[in-house]
Amino acid sequence: MRFVRTFLLLSLIPGFPMGIHAQTTPPQAAHSYTAAHQAELTRQFADFLSIPNVAADPASLRKNAEFLLAQLKARGANAQLLTAPGLPASVPPLVWGEFRTPGATRTIVFYAHYDGQPVTPSEWDTGAPFTPVIKQVDGEPRIYARGAGDDKAAIFAQLQALSALQAAHIPLKENIRFVWEGEEEAGSVHLEQMLMANRSLIEGDLWLVCDGPVDQSRQQTVVFGARGDAHLQITVYGPAHPLHSGHYGNWAPNPAMMLVQLLAGMKDADGHVLIPHFYDGIVPLGPIERQALASAPVNDEMLRKEFELGHTDGAGKHLLELLNEPTLNINGISSGQTGTHATNSIPHTATVDLDLRLVVGVDGKIQQQRVIDYVRAQGYFVTDKEPTREELLSNAKVAFIHADQVEPASRTPMDLPIAADVIQAVKSARGNVILIPTMGGTVPLEVMEHAANTRTITVPIANHDDNQHAANENLRLQNLWDGIETMAALIAMP
Amino acid sequence: MRFVRTFLLLSLIPGFPMGIHAQTTPPQAAHSYTAAHQAELTRQFADFLSIPNVAADPASLRKNAEFLLAQLKARGANAQLLTAPGLPASVPPLVWGEFRTPGATRTIVFYAHYDGQPVTPSEWDTGAPFTPVIKQVDGEPRIYARGAGDDKAAIFAQLQALSALQAAHIPLKENIRFVWEGEEEAGSVHLEQMLMANRSLIEGDLWLVCDGPVDQSRQQTVVFGARGDAHLQITVYGPAHPLHSGHYGNWAPNPAMMLVQLLAGMKDADGHVLIPHFYDGIVPLGPIERQALASAPVNDEMLRKEFELGHTDGAGKHLLELLNEPTLNINGISSGQTGTHATNSIPHTATVDLDLRLVVGVDGKIQQQRVIDYVRAQGYFVTDKEPTREELLSNAKVAFIHADQVEPASRTPMDLPIAADVIQAVKSARGNVILIPTMGGTVPLEVMEHAANTRTITVPIANHDDNQHAANENLRLQNLWDGIETMAALIAMP
Repeated sequence: MRFVRTFLLLSLIPGFPMGIHAQTTPPQAAHSYTAAHQAELTRQFADFLSIPNVAADPASLRKNAEFLLAQLKARGANAQLLTAPGLPASVPPLVWGEFRTPGATRTIVFYAHYDGQPVTPSEWDTGAPFTPVIKQVDGEPRIYARGAGDDKAAIFAQLQALSALQAAHIPLKENIRFVWEGEEEAGSVHLEQMLMANRSLIEGDLWLVCDGPVDQSRQQTVVFGARGDAHLQITVYGPAHPLHSGHYGNWAPNPAMMLVQLLAGMKDADGHVLIPHFYDGIVPLGPIERQALASAPVNDEMLRKEFELGHTDGAGKHLLELLNEPTLNINGISSGQTGTHATNSIPHTATVDLDLRLVVGVDGKIQQQRVIDYVRAQGYFVTDKEPTREELLSNAKVAFIHADQVEPASRTPMDLPIAADVIQAVKSARGNVILIPTMGGTVPLEVMEHAANTRTITVPIANHDDNQHAANENLRLQNLWDGIETMAALIAMP
Repeated sequence: MRFVRTFLLLSLIPGFPMGIHAQTTPPQAAHSYTAAHQAELTRQFADFLSIPNVAADPASLRKNAEFLLAQLKARGANAQLLTAPGLPASVPPLVWGEFRTPGATRTIVFYAHYDGQPVTPSEWDTGAPFTPVIKQVDGEPRIYARGAGDDKAAIFAQLQALSALQAAHIPLKENIRFVWEGEEEAGSVHLEQMLMANRSLIEGDLWLVCDGPVDQSRQQTVVFGARGDAHLQITVYGPAHPLHSGHYGNWAPNPAMMLVQLLAGMKDADGHVLIPHFYDGIVPLGPIERQALASAPVNDEMLRKEFELGHTDGAGKHLLELLNEPTLNINGISSGQTGTHATNSIPHTATVDLDLRLVVGVDGKIQQQRVIDYVRAQGYFVTDKEPTREELLSNAKVAFIHADQVEPASRTPMDLPIAADVIQAVKSARGNVILIPTMGGTVPLEVMEHAANTRTITVPIANHDDNQHAANENLRLQNLWDGIETMAALIAMP
């Protein structure tokens, strides 16, 4: 395995010194280390990215886990793979590692995930999401592969921060733990179970969640919460099989037209959701969070140009404000076929995948039910199974709705003492820091907080324009070098 | 080639007798012939269906044409492949054949097409649209393959009707011509050009168009017109590439939501099109056509159950009435991905393929423009090219609309003298006959009428439930045996 070989070359001194205080600060040590080894570290990262990490391929996820276990052990960590009793071997394990520090008063747990979103290789420029390539974008190198930004970058940065601290003989001050998940993109369906089965190993005074992107201005961000997430898949029914659009057009209902009419009423032209009670229960931001939001940069116009948007939703509110509201997003819609495969047919069914982001105070199951109630109010017979012939014949309109697992939203107060230490450590590495009450994306913060009896703060390192969750996912390499410095500061924080 | 070998076995006597009047009628001759050779004819038909016939594969379309040319020649026809000056060799030719009859006063031209709709093999039960299989449905055998019903059945029936007449020594009374097209499912884009380049070969007193399905009651149908067809593909734009639905949800406009809101307003809940002027200009049916419609069977409730429909469009009008109105049908819609490939993303674009059926008095280009005007009236900047970055940035909403070739509608008066002869010939084969003013589907009748300076009457033979234009296309074999009798009666008609 190429990565292991090259890794050993760089870290001949595993483990941490005890009580010997070095002259350099942790970020300085990380800077020297990455500057001296950029080419080698880039190659190592590419090796890591070349191990496929999608849910459909549990064997490869297992390879990622075993690879990371070896990396932790090579750095002197007490490490193991964690699962829960009764789970099948195909469930990707947690990769767990620990450095205990004599005299430490706190335990900091670093969370990240090694799995990635599903891939459709044909959509990638390379056609190969697990064959990493380096490309120059705006004169800066980026590495392209599934997981590059979300979230292998964070894991790799933590491993290299450990190496840098060890190379500079910088001792740790707190107990440090790592918990790296393999099911985050699949909804973290077993995370709570695995954490609860290993509580003594995963508890800590704080979980530092290293996932998601930094601010679009490329300044380092510290985030105190994340939106939750819930999904719905809705299928509506036309004829029992596709019909000739000439011979039956005007008479056989078209499920695509039914679905667009159902969905169109869910939002207004500004993107405001019209489903009754959709915004009920939202816990408002406090004065500190509102102040942080007011101080954060407004990148909207820069982003509008970057994304070539002629307008934005939100009726004039800024992006960072809008992240504190729940969403209803069409992830995908399909019925019949478009383009060269289109045929003159009335399709059999039409399907939409909806993504509902949640904020603190909005329960995912309740939010899903609000959508289901809305569909029913539009005259649909709603079922959670494939409808029977009898159901199809006896109801004017039928919708099969599958409601997925829910991930709750979470938000940590910005004024906790440990929060001040985190902010200080990140500032020591990156200078100015942007504080954000709520990240738009979802990480299972609430599950961690509950299982580990702790609070969470999120320190992302990826560039915002990393195409995460889409084709051509990438990491701007400068974000990796910066991220290693940030992680070194946090791992060695007082 | 298996088919040719087996064919020669059955038709040892090519050509027609002259002046020797046989005892049996043409339908009786066809009945005896098919009854004696069913297994062999089924095998021959399967051989014909196993030659792929989609537009994406011109080489295979050519094989179909050469195969059919050989079939005509083997039956003694004067035959050749027709094209037009300047057309590339990849354009599928017309297969043309002729039997001249001394003393004939009329020339009857039989039209059908040998190409089929595009295929998506994964949607077929067999995964192989060109590997014909026979299955029992409701105790009756059907043959499954692309083209089985639409429209190789008609060509095969004409060839076997010739064989049956020849075997029974039944002479022809009129000049008979065959024109078999290879681009019907691709919009007959070169048909007019090829007909105009060969006018003396294709003119006739009547074109008998053998395409489409018979009535849902399985009774033989004679059709006097067809709806025309026009297409539009509309693409609307979200972010320049897919974005994380968490990090940008509520702010970056979702093109799928934009598209569903655009489409939803195009129809009401009954399927009535709301686009201004959509129904303007329709030429109403005359008293004879209205009488025919009133006499035709109403199969709506049977079809509703067959297709498992909980409701039908049209505000209570019958299917056969609704075929005399223009349509707006969503052939396909797509944005992002659904199901296991769905990701939490705001998609880049959303696309719909629309099919607009036309009736006499409604011009296709005007109808397309009405839809384009509607899109513009919803606030869209409309372009007929991929929009530029500048266009995307400077317009709130952008739609790229591609308007395809148009096929006009056509309707022949039911009271022409030659129409009476056709109805009589079909009745001699099938007994009761249903007369329909307008077929819902589209065949290029208007092009034929214009180029061949003639009128058209359509005599379909396929079963209505043949899944034409969709996966698992099939032909009920009884429709083939009946169709051979009908074609024999028409080929030998006075």
